[in-house]
Amino acid sequence: MIIDIHGHYTTEPAPLHQFRDKQLAALADPGRKPSSTDLGISDEQLVQSVQPQLKFQTERGSDLTIFSPRASGMGHHVGNEAVNQVWSRVSNDLIHRICTLLPDNFAPVGQLPQFPGAPIEGVLPELERLQQLGFVGVNLNPDPSGGYWKSPPLTDRYWYPVYEKLVEYEMPAMIHVTGSCNPAVHFTGAHYINGDTTAFMQLLQGNLFKDFPGLRFVIPHGGGAVPFHWGRYRGIAQDMKKPLLREHLLKNVFFDTCVYHLPGIELMAKVIPVDNILFASEMVGAVKGIDPETGHYYDDTKRYVDQLKTLSDADRYKIFEGNARRVYPRLDRMLARRGKPGRKAA
Amino acid sequence: MIIDIHGHYTTEPAPLHQFRDKQLAALADPGRKPSSTDLGISDEQLVQSVQPQLKFQTERGSDLTIFSPRASGMGHHVGNEAVNQVWSRVSNDLIHRICTLLPDNFAPVGQLPQFPGAPIEGVLPELERLQQLGFVGVNLNPDPSGGYWKSPPLTDRYWYPVYEKLVEYEMPAMIHVTGSCNPAVHFTGAHYINGDTTAFMQLLQGNLFKDFPGLRFVIPHGGGAVPFHWGRYRGIAQDMKKPLLREHLLKNVFFDTCVYHLPGIELMAKVIPVDNILFASEMVGAVKGIDPETGHYYDDTKRYVDQLKTLSDADRYKIFEGNARRVYPRLDRMLARRGKPGRKAA
Repeated sequence: MIIDIHGHYTTEPAPLHQFRDKQLAALADPGRKPSSTDLGISDEQLVQSVQPQLKFQTERGSDLTIFSPRASGMGHHVGNEAVNQVWSRVSNDLIHRICTLLPDNFAPVGQLPQFPGAPIEGVLPELERLQQLGFVGVNLNPDPSGGYWKSPPLTDRYWYPVYEKLVEYEMPAMIHVTGSCNPAVHFTGAHYINGDTTAFMQLLQGNLFKDFPGLRFVIPHGGGAVPFHWGRYRGIAQDMKKPLLREHLLKNVFFDTCVYHLPGIELMAKVIPVDNILFASEMVGAVKGIDPETGHYYDDTKRYVDQLKTLSDADRYKIFEGNARRVYPRLDRMLARRGKPGRKAA
Repeated sequence: MIIDIHGHYTTEPAPLHQFRDKQLAALADPGRKPSSTDLGISDEQLVQSVQPQLKFQTERGSDLTIFSPRASGMGHHVGNEAVNQVWSRVSNDLIHRICTLLPDNFAPVGQLPQFPGAPIEGVLPELERLQQLGFVGVNLNPDPSGGYWKSPPLTDRYWYPVYEKLVEYEMPAMIHVTGSCNPAVHFTGAHYINGDTTAFMQLLQGNLFKDFPGLRFVIPHGGGAVPFHWGRYRGIAQDMKKPLLREHLLKNVFFDTCVYHLPGIELMAKVIPVDNILFASEMVGAVKGIDPETGHYYDDTKRYVDQLKTLSDADRYKIFEGNARRVYPRLDRMLARRGKPGRKAA
């Protein structure tokens, strides 16, 4: 099977946006607070809302999408701690319902109610709830200030309470920023990619996985700038007297294939070990158009992986399925329970 | 000849650092202000200080380095407007002296006395002085706040007074951040690369070169994440109804080859037109070691370009010399005056 590990719910029904409007309007005028967290969205509406994703799955040949709320919609820098708690719960509940309605097509990943400057312990109740609901991972935002980078680096003990739970629950975290409120930093064109690059460098500087050998991070968008500058990162690690990156980071850090042209995916396959590459497209996401140079959607990343000539059949299995089952063990067990075990590791 | 367009003076003699210590100490204790901007550094000391660069030029086969003050040393977020004026002047004067002493090896690029939040007009006197001294370009910092991105994007009219002068003087700007004072953002491993990516995206969003068709920007470090995500940027531009990137940006925006492994340079040569690639190594710079996988210095980027099999002789000339002469017209004229004209354009 083909598992796409990075899809966001970017086709939400209007009532979710109406709820969010009321919720944020209430910051200025408390009288506008939504009267209920019941959005009145029917199961039929939910199934209808993800038809674009189902269509792309069929057309492009993927089976299952690991599905989480819209990344830019997390808006950790908007609202306040209490608002973010409610917003995360409402957003995650929709994901949970979709994945329950369409279990062969979607597996759930949740957002966390982070807030800039707030103690990270505030996210733990929602994280526990996600674990109980069967979510297979979470998105963790390294910059809840939305483009100003006001949080301590991911290696700081500030984050440790979350890591302890992620390890206990066997849930990996995709390191994914939300929207940018910084006018100098465009969200999908700069902040997302910078977030990936910055997170990787934070991990390189530290020694986090000595404290958490069971912790797993997925760095999306192909790892930001990292594979393109792989020599730079190997060289900086060497100057810093760190172990080789393979030892230092690659047992715990993985990259997805959300890179929207063949030369980028070719580069990635050359420098990043195949065990660390997970297939993903981020559809329906940051780039929606058709590439006039190929006649295909930019984000139809399966085509790029299919064109890699150097991959063996075993390599392809790892990128499309095996690595996802290893990095997301709860997903693997869920699929096995449904009669879809993975190949035995060679 | 082989022109390396990106070298910083990272081997400064001790008296420069002592001056800087006194200058910054004086922020807390005015009594510690340096008594003079005469550092007492002899010509012999200056020539001695750049022996590492000369040795690398000889060993690696480059001829001329476009040379500017240490990027992380610009420290625009440190000090204040008055301090930064003096610091830029002192730093630029050393570059000027080195380039005068060793004109066959170095051509001068200057730093600007930017300060976060200060009117950009404050840099104009130093810019005029640089022009009079024969500098061929400047480094322009898109984030003088040092990792917090508090300035308006490069397309904002805030920056226009500098652009008017750069066009008038025929000086290109390398868009180069300085050090980071943000503990989440490492300087050479995240801030530099993010700076490149962010600047490119700012330019993509705007329409700056319609107002300044003669303005030229060099985005260093291979353009940050941009070539690796070239499909993403083409797709985002398309979604934004911008012209093709070639039309929209590539008449004015150029990338250097400071990418420290062969696969990165190969990718760059695949997606970025050869007219937009300028040879550079940033030596002696961000990565100082020898790559155990090749036995050569990571930043010996000439080796990577030499290994590109797809380049014609004319392409190689462009990357190593021709593009530099075109983007830095003052350099071209300076070389021509010294009896070293470039090849006539075909």
